[in-house]
Amino acid sequence: MTVSALPLVPPAAEDPYVERVRDHVRTLPESGIVEVMNYGRSRPGMIPLWAGEGDIPTPAFICEAAAATLHAGETFYTWQRGLPELRAAIARYMARHYGVAPDPERYFVTGSGMQAIHVALAMVAGAGDEVIIPSPAWPNAAAAAQKTGARPVYVPFAYGPQGFALDHERLAAAVTPATRAIFLNTPANPTGFVATLDDLKAVLALARRHGLWIIADEIYGRFYYGHADRAPSFHDVMEADDHILFVQTFSKNWAMTGWRIGWLEAHPRLGQIIENLIQYSTSGVAAFMQRGAVAALDEGEAFVAEQIARARRGRDIVADALIGTGKVDLVKPPGAFYLFFGIAGREDVRSLGFTLVDEANVGLAPGTAFGPGGEGFMRLCFARGDAQLAEVSRRLVSWLERDGTAGAPTA
Amino acid sequence: MTVSALPLVPPAAEDPYVERVRDHVRTLPESGIVEVMNYGRSRPGMIPLWAGEGDIPTPAFICEAAAATLHAGETFYTWQRGLPELRAAIARYMARHYGVAPDPERYFVTGSGMQAIHVALAMVAGAGDEVIIPSPAWPNAAAAAQKTGARPVYVPFAYGPQGFALDHERLAAAVTPATRAIFLNTPANPTGFVATLDDLKAVLALARRHGLWIIADEIYGRFYYGHADRAPSFHDVMEADDHILFVQTFSKNWAMTGWRIGWLEAHPRLGQIIENLIQYSTSGVAAFMQRGAVAALDEGEAFVAEQIARARRGRDIVADALIGTGKVDLVKPPGAFYLFFGIAGREDVRSLGFTLVDEANVGLAPGTAFGPGGEGFMRLCFARGDAQLAEVSRRLVSWLERDGTAGAPTA
Repeated sequence: MTVSALPLVPPAAEDPYVERVRDHVRTLPESGIVEVMNYGRSRPGMIPLWAGEGDIPTPAFICEAAAATLHAGETFYTWQRGLPELRAAIARYMARHYGVAPDPERYFVTGSGMQAIHVALAMVAGAGDEVIIPSPAWPNAAAAAQKTGARPVYVPFAYGPQGFALDHERLAAAVTPATRAIFLNTPANPTGFVATLDDLKAVLALARRHGLWIIADEIYGRFYYGHADRAPSFHDVMEADDHILFVQTFSKNWAMTGWRIGWLEAHPRLGQIIENLIQYSTSGVAAFMQRGAVAALDEGEAFVAEQIARARRGRDIVADALIGTGKVDLVKPPGAFYLFFGIAGREDVRSLGFTLVDEANVGLAPGTAFGPGGEGFMRLCFARGDAQLAEVSRRLVSWLERDGTAGAPTA
Repeated sequence: MTVSALPLVPPAAEDPYVERVRDHVRTLPESGIVEVMNYGRSRPGMIPLWAGEGDIPTPAFICEAAAATLHAGETFYTWQRGLPELRAAIARYMARHYGVAPDPERYFVTGSGMQAIHVALAMVAGAGDEVIIPSPAWPNAAAAAQKTGARPVYVPFAYGPQGFALDHERLAAAVTPATRAIFLNTPANPTGFVATLDDLKAVLALARRHGLWIIADEIYGRFYYGHADRAPSFHDVMEADDHILFVQTFSKNWAMTGWRIGWLEAHPRLGQIIENLIQYSTSGVAAFMQRGAVAALDEGEAFVAEQIARARRGRDIVADALIGTGKVDLVKPPGAFYLFFGIAGREDVRSLGFTLVDEANVGLAPGTAFGPGGEGFMRLCFARGDAQLAEVSRRLVSWLERDGTAGAPTA
């Protein structure tokens, strides 16, 4: 089944003042996580695991690099494609970790990974177009596609005892003459799915066959729990002239969620177009933030390694505890930093989110916030310290043991 | 004459790789200022007056407010509509200077005034729509309209011995069934045009009659050289339920061009839609930058006053010197911080930009970068210190006196 409906109802569509807003913008969905956050955020002792961020502030060496140049007066307009020093630092980083030939002209600094997605989608999609997105998925990709006037087309993952997997037949069947792009997030939020090299080759072949763009969201690429420095990437299978746009962010690896800085990687021949799209949406990123980003790339590897090791421990602490109850449907994810699991007898995950706030003092996000295929699941972010996650495990296990409705897992 | 063509030719349209980019994005124009900037930026002793920014870095009290909270760890995701403290500070500022009832729910923090324009246009325009823009104009508004898939429709200002004026007949004649919005910048870049209260009433009446949005770009409102604290504003003539979206920026008043922070002012009933558009394009503005912005609003009035006084002196220094030569067509602008003037016998302003770099060591922007009506004009930014502008005057006067082609002004 191919589904294109967005998960939430539009706000205030009957208001005559608001009706003068374009339809595809007026009906953009509100984040489905906000509801439970608003419900729970002020509870004493609440442990909030609903958002996609850790609990560690940005390391001091990054903040200091930014503050030094801010105080030195680097407060003027800067390069629309990003500081040459930062583009070079990104090229070095990508060469080290992904084996990409170090060409700074491939990299464009953006005001968040979200803006990289916005720019990528603006290039490839508009009114009348379709963008294919495997789901459940981080909802912002579909919403950003809708914002261009295009129609997001969700294609559910297959789900079984091994967890989530791409359903290549469904993907191929979803392609229509209006399809312009496939948006693939791997490792994936919220499912923890990690595409294999064979998956990537198959998606690339499909895109080549139909002349589609691929928007590759590999922002969790380093958060990989297999036997390698990183997850498989389109960089491993692509040719130079493939139509692939990579979106990236400083948010996760370097604990910079609040900074709003990322990058877009694209064929250098798109350079002027991307520069124009940045110019006409935000006109660049503060140079002083970019100095912090240079420090992150050049001096941050020990921090990244510790972040990943911590996430792996966090995954095991909570997943082992929950699996031990026999009351959850949970496959340990091979990547990203989320558990995405079902609780037997608890199909209504929207109300389950409120219940867990009230009865376990733990904040999780309902799977329904992530589109078709998310029904029956809860998302838990494990990018936190061991002690706090041990406490989370105690609270959830205790609640599961008290919960009369939870029986054997239904898989 | 109504003109809708954008000023520059599209880049690399024949490249088969690039042809897979959506037409309205592939053909976005490159900034027409960049060419002369690239030509001149490395000349020793060059005085660059081509960009729309001054020469003073952000004041220390603003930088310190930002750095303090950055070091304190305020580096996590934040409110999509902006920090409550900043929205309240904007409301106080707007109440003080514009008499707007202080309601923080009217204000939405954006990652630049440019992003405020992007969000405003995304709400009101898309494929098949038209947006009316008096011209010459700062080119980013038209390009941002085109980016949505809409068609920017330029309506030239009238020009005469008193300078630039809105041509209300032409404006009314430009409205078609496809028109969705009028974008009005006052005080205006590059012309220095300032709308009178009667102008604003007439534009508002036109918009009401046809059910159009107004996007009001009043970012230079405080840079006004009449006998008032600020230029006339749509705030002076509107009713609460008028469809007006105000775009604003911290860039000019507080010397924060490089920060990329501004705000959108809109009816609170648009709140959820605007929050969604921010969420799905950049997902907010760094909280530490917002702390700097609070300091700017609450403690920056003396700095703003000095900036405006300095700009007024700068305007007089250069304008008086140039007018004294009898070889320029220049009306002293009542607002903003640009001179927009013609030089007799020098119609080809693109090549004149290069000539002035070579022969006067001064960098000006060609009027052709600002759309129809800009032909024959050069733009000079006078937001700089007296001594430097006196030197600019000497260089330009000396060049004009040497210039064999410059005769009497042609007005």
